[in-house]
Amino acid sequence: MAGAEARATTLNASVQGFASDNYAPAHPEVLAAIIAANDSHAVAYGADPWTARAEQLLRAHFGEQAVSYLVFNGSAANVLCLRALCRPWESVVCAAQAHINVDEGGAPERIAGVKLHAVPTTDAKLTPAHIEGRLQRRGDEHVVQPRVVSITQSTELGTRYSPDELHALAQFAHEHGLLVHVDGARLANAAAGLGVSLREITTDAGVDAVSFGGTKNGLLLGEAVVFLDPALAEGVRYLRKQTLQLASKGRFLAAQFIALLEGDLWRRNAEHANAMATRLADALTGVPGVRLTQPVQANALFAVLAADVTERLQRDWPFYTWDAQTGEVRLVCSWDTTTEEVDAFAADVRRACAAAPA
Amino acid sequence: MAGAEARATTLNASVQGFASDNYAPAHPEVLAAIIAANDSHAVAYGADPWTARAEQLLRAHFGEQAVSYLVFNGSAANVLCLRALCRPWESVVCAAQAHINVDEGGAPERIAGVKLHAVPTTDAKLTPAHIEGRLQRRGDEHVVQPRVVSITQSTELGTRYSPDELHALAQFAHEHGLLVHVDGARLANAAAGLGVSLREITTDAGVDAVSFGGTKNGLLLGEAVVFLDPALAEGVRYLRKQTLQLASKGRFLAAQFIALLEGDLWRRNAEHANAMATRLADALTGVPGVRLTQPVQANALFAVLAADVTERLQRDWPFYTWDAQTGEVRLVCSWDTTTEEVDAFAADVRRACAAAPA
Amino acid sequence: MAGAEARATTLNASVQGFASDNYAPAHPEVLAAIIAANDSHAVAYGADPWTARAEQLLRAHFGEQAVSYLVFNGSAANVLCLRALCRPWESVVCAAQAHINVDEGGAPERIAGVKLHAVPTTDAKLTPAHIEGRLQRRGDEHVVQPRVVSITQSTELGTRYSPDELHALAQFAHEHGLLVHVDGARLANAAAGLGVSLREITTDAGVDAVSFGGTKNGLLLGEAVVFLDPALAEGVRYLRKQTLQLASKGRFLAAQFIALLEGDLWRRNAEHANAMATRLADALTGVPGVRLTQPVQANALFAVLAADVTERLQRDWPFYTWDAQTGEVRLVCSWDTTTEEVDAFAADVRRACAAAPA
Amino acid sequence: MAGAEARATTLNASVQGFASDNYAPAHPEVLAAIIAANDSHAVAYGADPWTARAEQLLRAHFGEQAVSYLVFNGSAANVLCLRALCRPWESVVCAAQAHINVDEGGAPERIAGVKLHAVPTTDAKLTPAHIEGRLQRRGDEHVVQPRVVSITQSTELGTRYSPDELHALAQFAHEHGLLVHVDGARLANAAAGLGVSLREITTDAGVDAVSFGGTKNGLLLGEAVVFLDPALAEGVRYLRKQTLQLASKGRFLAAQFIALLEGDLWRRNAEHANAMATRLADALTGVPGVRLTQPVQANALFAVLAADVTERLQRDWPFYTWDAQTGEVRLVCSWDTTTEEVDAFAADVRRACAAAPA
Repeated sequence: MAGAEARATTLNASVQGFASDNYAPAHPEVLAAIIAANDSHAVAYGADPWTARAEQLLRAHFGEQAVSYLVFNGSAANVLCLRALCRPWESVVCAAQAHINVDEGGAPERIAGVKLHAVPTTDAKLTPAHIEGRLQRRGDEHVVQPRVVSITQSTELGTRYSPDELHALAQFAHEHGLLVHVDGARLANAAAGLGVSLREITTDAGVDAVSFGGTKNGLLLGEAVVFLDPALAEGVRYLRKQTLQLASKGRFLAAQFIALLEGDLWRRNAEHANAMATRLADALTGVPGVRLTQPVQANALFAVLAADVTERLQRDWPFYTWDAQTGEVRLVCSWDTTTEEVDAFAADVRRACAAAPA
Repeated sequence: MAGAEARATTLNASVQGFASDNYAPAHPEVLAAIIAANDSHAVAYGADPWTARAEQLLRAHFGEQAVSYLVFNGSAANVLCLRALCRPWESVVCAAQAHINVDEGGAPERIAGVKLHAVPTTDAKLTPAHIEGRLQRRGDEHVVQPRVVSITQSTELGTRYSPDELHALAQFAHEHGLLVHVDGARLANAAAGLGVSLREITTDAGVDAVSFGGTKNGLLLGEAVVFLDPALAEGVRYLRKQTLQLASKGRFLAAQFIALLEGDLWRRNAEHANAMATRLADALTGVPGVRLTQPVQANALFAVLAADVTERLQRDWPFYTWDAQTGEVRLVCSWDTTTEEVDAFAADVRRACAAAPA
Repeated sequence: MAGAEARATTLNASVQGFASDNYAPAHPEVLAAIIAANDSHAVAYGADPWTARAEQLLRAHFGEQAVSYLVFNGSAANVLCLRALCRPWESVVCAAQAHINVDEGGAPERIAGVKLHAVPTTDAKLTPAHIEGRLQRRGDEHVVQPRVVSITQSTELGTRYSPDELHALAQFAHEHGLLVHVDGARLANAAAGLGVSLREITTDAGVDAVSFGGTKNGLLLGEAVVFLDPALAEGVRYLRKQTLQLASKGRFLAAQFIALLEGDLWRRNAEHANAMATRLADALTGVPGVRLTQPVQANALFAVLAADVTERLQRDWPFYTWDAQTGEVRLVCSWDTTTEEVDAFAADVRRACAAAPA
Repeated sequence: MAGAEARATTLNASVQGFASDNYAPAHPEVLAAIIAANDSHAVAYGADPWTARAEQLLRAHFGEQAVSYLVFNGSAANVLCLRALCRPWESVVCAAQAHINVDEGGAPERIAGVKLHAVPTTDAKLTPAHIEGRLQRRGDEHVVQPRVVSITQSTELGTRYSPDELHALAQFAHEHGLLVHVDGARLANAAAGLGVSLREITTDAGVDAVSFGGTKNGLLLGEAVVFLDPALAEGVRYLRKQTLQLASKGRFLAAQFIALLEGDLWRRNAEHANAMATRLADALTGVPGVRLTQPVQANALFAVLAADVTERLQRDWPFYTWDAQTGEVRLVCSWDTTTEEVDAFAADVRRACAAAPA
């Protein structure tokens, strides 16, 4: 172990930066909860008191009718939701930038069997008009029938839906016989940014099912699938098992969610990450050679930089190029991003831009 | 948190027993490894130094050519192996008692799409003769073509294959164009029981792919899929992602495997669990009213008890009835089972049997 | 064309025999119906008057509530039924000899995603006791949940279920929350053999869904999926399309079913094939060296012959060896089998047996 | 039968028009071939002389190395090709208008498990630039990997690829490790329109696999899947069976293809349909109120009409509205479309447009 630790410390130093909120470690309170749970035997497969408590807390946050299931990762949460909500001939409308469309290795199609109707957007947000364009040929057996609108909150581009936007979307969806799924890998960031509860941007807005993220907000691993209408959750426990997401030592997923949700850790982590992204945006706004491409509404910032500027910065700071053709980069802040890091990086950006040829 | 902890302590006391090795907590060294890894940022999705080190250790244990992928749980490890080894028209021969056949919620069929040819056995072990009976109609397009022999080591009935048995099975399989997969959720228990290395009962015996278990042997969660022939691993990294098994914070799975495999923790845990099962078997052998149904070759013991004896015992000791019709029960020991527990339980069994009507 | 015709005539002469009822040509009345339908344009995809008429006739035969869909072949009919009746976590109990289990290329698992619980039987017939043995662990999320009992009528071994047997099976199934599917590739042979209507051995016996065969009973190609409870047919039109079974020129499937069902052609064809099988059985009964292995209750006969007898006979007569180990052969009669063929073949059997060494 | 015939005749008269080439009956020569094949017994499942002859003819048309499999319909041909060409983590680039994307009930995703990358186009034709836009993140395990470019020839919009366009597309695809599949439901119309052989726009252009259509070109039903590289066809016979496309009385599919391909029926039918579409286009060009939206390069014509004009015409002439929002309609000619019909319809269009308010 000593060797691994030493090597890790060395190497880790080089990846502290703005690559992703899943580069971050677990929050100490989360780890403490796991340690506390690691005592004696507990019933396996979720029939343990931690899981019962986590489910209780999820009801407290999402509403008394919420039925929840813990799973291992975000792709699984999404695929499980889609499996639960779609019959074999039904499909999903999503933004072209949606994680389910571009970053889940074809699992929605291969594992859930659903067709995705990917709608081009500029900000990764769907509107009723986007959905309306996919509602031709209802009832025509030649055509898969849209059943789910899947949105991401906050989005893959760091934008977010307001409660009003969500309400309008859900109302439109329901009027047309569709359900609304939220990929909430960063739902906490959206709620924190809006200054609202989790419930206000899900249950109260008319959302039907949520993939509620934990990993990107300070857990070791773990997401919760939350059905806001119990009728939609029929059979989901079978589907979770079959989708390979039933943890045998369930207490360790649950204990993390207890740590996140019993107090306000979920909000503290998200608010901090959001604040760091805003601080970074403020520091970069107006810098010649930097063009922010999206409003900064959560914990990520998108900007166009010159290729050589990006290259110079990436020598010291891990972050991802989002679009090699346009030069757009993505900068993500985490629960553990420090103001010092933000300021140092911003200074480096300014330096690099200044040094770049016009 | 305090509430959860308190409640857990109370409740846990009641489930210490012989229900399953996945009722057990994580080993302290495993938890220490996670804590040590929880420092600073690390590259996500397995491109981190812990994962590299875990893969190195897996090569040390299984052979230099071994290609491994960490996943979340045992069903996933099995399904991922079957997806990798079978083309769409190929199928799997397994014992009727195999976990993939009875305890994976239909995932092999629904998620991997493979047909299982479940062969009735008395001890959950396959022989060449069992496989031979499934080899009719090779090349006939009307019939799925057997491609994989999947065995469990140690088996679901606490029995194990000797290296010679494995060798004979693999040789037969290869002669008939089949591959051998080992569901090794308890591979460590088999190796420890046989007093051999992991390699001697896998690579050296001709096995092609292994689901190497961690959860039941002291991890929080985590299994490794190990391909012993790199040619079989083509595309598996895509399949792992698509099978919803790519952890974003991969270091936390990897750190646990480092703890397990860097020293001899894997063997210490397994040997202890095996020794406890043997101690229990010794204590129960000859007790009137107890009939052991399988040789005790790993960490589980199967016995027939009178229904009222079982009922009385289950008031104080968690364990599962395996077959309600025959009265067979399953008693599983873990890395943390104590001699005191074994002796106290054995004494209770003797008392219960003595009190039972003839 | 001329070349093909000539060659065909030559070659066909060599395959007239007892290989299978799908070696037989289409009945002239069926062909006449196709020719009559081949006039002018018709709405595609089943919205044509022939399809409406075929559906009407299927209701006349199976009951007014029957909802039917025409498909191309028997495997597709079965897979479509299983897709319609099973949710993703549900499974199917069938006899080990069932066509879905041994002769559909793994399509039930790969395409429908269902697990089959194959029950060993001697006569390919399921009883309530067989099903009862598969009903453990109801409601346990680790286990796929049996939902459908699939039987074949007449069976793959030429046996058949009586109305009473069907009634008992369906009652048992329904009492345990299961549905009954009949693979009726040779349903007509069963009905003809029993002297009952199609309805008496399906709807009236409590059957829920039927794959009603046409191809083996004188069609060019075509089967009908019939749901006897409309509630079970929800979405089936989408499933048929998705299962690749929606014919664009639907009239040509429908016209064949009209020919079969408008008069008594379905019964005439089946009765004739059955009568030929009975005639053959009578002729072979008592012949030294011939042992019939199943009661002859439809249009197929199973018998054990010495290997050299089989070999000698197969030089002149096409038929299949069913089990190379036991020497069991299968002899199938068709709507066009002649008494001359039966008698000539029986004489050849007698000769071959007489010539065989004791 | 008499009743059905009478009704059909009556009703058919009302659907003669321009709705679809699959509204048309079978060509008399095709029917004659079926009748000729309907004699005596033939080996089932494609091991018959007609199938051998059809395969030989397909080799004659597509090249000696072509390996072909007959199937029931076009969706199945496409899905079978995609199943054969894609591994589980591979995907397909197609035009947004592709039949596989909009008209196959989600079968590509649910049955083949492949993701489709639907590229918006104006004329339903893909170019190398379209494909290039889908080639980011090669080798990234988070992303399904494009493997197949699927184009339709002639397209769903009645346009066609020239041999040069095909060659450029295939070359680009191969340079990037992609295969080219042609949905050739109307391949004959493209070849006839171009005045080339089938081979010149498939094998010779670098195409890898073809769904070669029969139904829309005068068959009762039937399509051929043709692999132009035998290495790609490995296992396809298993996949065909599993995809529910193996006809038991295979001679009846094969005999139709013999009729189509032995002489020049395939070209005669296609040329006629194309000529009728051209005649119709000529007649409508310049008519006030009619705007052709696509070049007429095969047997279909697309035009924008005023809504009330369409409504008036559809009282007498079956044809489909393609886009209700723009008023675009589709007019398809068949092998049996007559000049009288074309002229009468064109006259009606002129009348209806003249009567329409400006």
